[in-house]
Amino acid sequence: MTTLNHYHYKRLQEFCSSVFVKAGVEKEQADIVAASLVQADLRGVDSHGVVRTAIYLKRVEQKMINPKAKIRIEKEDESTALIDGCNHFGAVVGDKALKLAMKKAKANGVGMVGVKNSNHFGTGAFYALRGLKEDLVTIVMSNASQTMPPTGGIKPFIGTNPLAVGIPCGECEPFLLDMATSVVARGKIIVAAQKGEAIPHGWAIDKNGKSTTNAEEALKGSVLPLGGPKGYGISMFIDIFSGVLTGAGFGKYVNNMYENWKAPQNVGHFFITIDVNKFMDIKTFKHRMDLYIRDIKTEPKAEDVEEIFIPGEMESRRSEQRKKNGINLSQNVQRELTNIGMKYGVSLKDALMLNHNTEGKGV
Amino acid sequence: MTTLNHYHYKRLQEFCSSVFVKAGVEKEQADIVAASLVQADLRGVDSHGVVRTAIYLKRVEQKMINPKAKIRIEKEDESTALIDGCNHFGAVVGDKALKLAMKKAKANGVGMVGVKNSNHFGTGAFYALRGLKEDLVTIVMSNASQTMPPTGGIKPFIGTNPLAVGIPCGECEPFLLDMATSVVARGKIIVAAQKGEAIPHGWAIDKNGKSTTNAEEALKGSVLPLGGPKGYGISMFIDIFSGVLTGAGFGKYVNNMYENWKAPQNVGHFFITIDVNKFMDIKTFKHRMDLYIRDIKTEPKAEDVEEIFIPGEMESRRSEQRKKNGINLSQNVQRELTNIGMKYGVSLKDALMLNHNTEGKGV
Ligand SMILES: NC(=O)c1ccc[n+]([C@@H]2O[C@H](COP(=O)([O-])OP(=O)(O)OC[C@H]3O[C@@H](n4cnc5c(N)ncnc54)[C@H](O)[C@@H]3O)[C@@H](O)[C@H]2O)c1
Ligand SMILES: NC(=O)c1ccc[n+]([C@@H]2O[C@H](COP(=O)([O-])OP(=O)(O)OC[C@H]3O[C@@H](n4cnc5c(N)ncnc54)[C@H](O)[C@@H]3O)[C@@H](O)[C@H]2O)c1
Repeated sequence: MTTLNHYHYKRLQEFCSSVFVKAGVEKEQADIVAASLVQADLRGVDSHGVVRTAIYLKRVEQKMINPKAKIRIEKEDESTALIDGCNHFGAVVGDKALKLAMKKAKANGVGMVGVKNSNHFGTGAFYALRGLKEDLVTIVMSNASQTMPPTGGIKPFIGTNPLAVGIPCGECEPFLLDMATSVVARGKIIVAAQKGEAIPHGWAIDKNGKSTTNAEEALKGSVLPLGGPKGYGISMFIDIFSGVLTGAGFGKYVNNMYENWKAPQNVGHFFITIDVNKFMDIKTFKHRMDLYIRDIKTEPKAEDVEEIFIPGEMESRRSEQRKKNGINLSQNVQRELTNIGMKYGVSLKDALMLNHNTEGKGV
Repeated sequence: MTTLNHYHYKRLQEFCSSVFVKAGVEKEQADIVAASLVQADLRGVDSHGVVRTAIYLKRVEQKMINPKAKIRIEKEDESTALIDGCNHFGAVVGDKALKLAMKKAKANGVGMVGVKNSNHFGTGAFYALRGLKEDLVTIVMSNASQTMPPTGGIKPFIGTNPLAVGIPCGECEPFLLDMATSVVARGKIIVAAQKGEAIPHGWAIDKNGKSTTNAEEALKGSVLPLGGPKGYGISMFIDIFSGVLTGAGFGKYVNNMYENWKAPQNVGHFFITIDVNKFMDIKTFKHRMDLYIRDIKTEPKAEDVEEIFIPGEMESRRSEQRKKNGINLSQNVQRELTNIGMKYGVSLKDALMLNHNTEGKGV
């Protein structure tokens, strides 16, 4: 029976939200954070899913996140704004910034909102997907604490700073690129380390700058940027947009969520939203996008390849499946969440998908 | 003596410009195209330098580029615009679009200008550097004809669509990332093929989808996107911004400059310019950029590494050197340019840097 470790996404989200509420977060904001975590699990980005509940809570408990903060708009003009997250949850600050950017795009064609004094905001897709719902082209960036060396360096200096780009389509699944600027997300190395598995060559170097396949050693060393100097350059400009330009931390001034218990993270984000109609009627644009995607999907395939995918397509399918069949949590994560639940008086068991055949329907 | 194949950049630029003028291009516009080519040679991006003079001219001669076209602004709002290049030279159209984007950023904080019906526009750096001169953060994208397969595919489908990002600094060399979205620019494989040299594994596949180190085979096959699906995704969104959103060609509807003599290329570009002051006082920003760059440059280095570089820094140094010492052209390129010069009655010899010790001074 797999049902004993499969969780219903809505109830898992309620579990996380309830725990955050008991830890002092307002309901509406707890819902946002919980939604961002569970959506990552649904999409198969497990490294950014409910596995992060524990660290988020710990940072609240240790006063490294302030869930009572009043997020402020510090600077504002027709198409631009700068938001001071005042050290609230990354997802809550990001949500507010994105909404402002979307409002500006609808009013003036373009929205650009920078954010400082924020925290880990989850996946870029969480925001890009919301932009997509409003038919806006959406670019999302965030910096992160030091994990990758500059080209030629050996020590972590820049983060695996994620970049997400969402673009609406007509009948086809929308384009949704959401990527770490490392060869792979550091979260995947954390998962490998937890499972005691080796990682492929080229993913990371150890603390002496030598290539390694040992996940534990890799976590002590550095993840490598994708494509050498190009990924290093992409990660840098994300750090500059998110950090240097906003007044947030950048490079070594972004604090590590897991290691620094003396100061808030001071993460920065940057959101760009664009109203397609300023360039082309949205209906025509969507037709063109569908044509583009259908062209790609019918390209000749390599021998062992069953299907050519559009960025975001696999995650979207996974999400549909997991909505039906439940989210499968590892023993470790279940144990951790159970303990958290006990501490805050919320039962994880209630989120179990005991009868997933009937429950999946109607979702 | 190396002086016999070293050319003075200003006179080489005059040579190219004169040839274009004789081919029917207006002086001011010929100067722009020539400047874009020679600047690439100065910066060491030889694949996009005066080596392209011949193909640009041929496309004018065959009426595939229309140097008499009147470029039109088709749609315009405060921060956005759509330009119809009417099949003029890419550099001329790009120049006009960039200027409009800069004007908008200065007036409203943000400029976003899409371009359709254009041609190969040279390097992204040519535009980003101009944005930098005006202290604007500048993002430049262009699509290109089919050279890379989608992940899982075997046939060229997307271009090596370049992305450039320029960010002003104070005392340090500005950040200037300018990259093809392939593992390497296709131009480098063209150069290797011309020299009869092998290329490293991982750069390209042959026409059957197999990895190859033969540059000729690679040119018949496909260059690979950087970092697998991530580079594929980046290249796709550049194609969407430049092509789908503007009304230009995209994917297979961007025509090959070297092979298609029946129709114009219909390349698209996209320019984004941002006024830093909308987020942070430019002086403070520049201090922060300097700090960031100095932090990176003093990071511990791998054993065989002499210096950690910022994107654009190597190119900028090379440019200074070549301004002093001249641009070294290969025998092939010299022969080609000499023939062009003879055809149009312009002497390449006049651009030779015969006495580069004295001539370099004062530049
Ligand atoms: N908040 C932070 O600090 C932070 C830092 C780093 C990463 N992240 C998040 O981590 C997540 C994982 O990043 P990642 O880089 O490991 O993701 P990934 O490598 O699994 O996928 C990256 C992108 O490539 C696409 N893709 C993958 N294979 C494909 C194929 N065969 N065909 C077409 N498209 C394909 C995916 O759809 C996705 O858009 C992202 O959600 C990112 O936002 C967050
Ligand atoms: N118009 C077109 O259709 C088209 C198509 C593709 C490429 N291009 C142009 O081709 C040119 C070459 O592209 P490329 O990708 O081969 O360039 P590249 O690989 O030589 O350099 C890419 C970027 O990485 C930086 N870089 C390289 N090594 C570095 C290091 N060790 N440390 C720090 N930074 C480093 C460079 O400064 C540059 O910004 C670009 O100018 C691009 O605009 C044009």
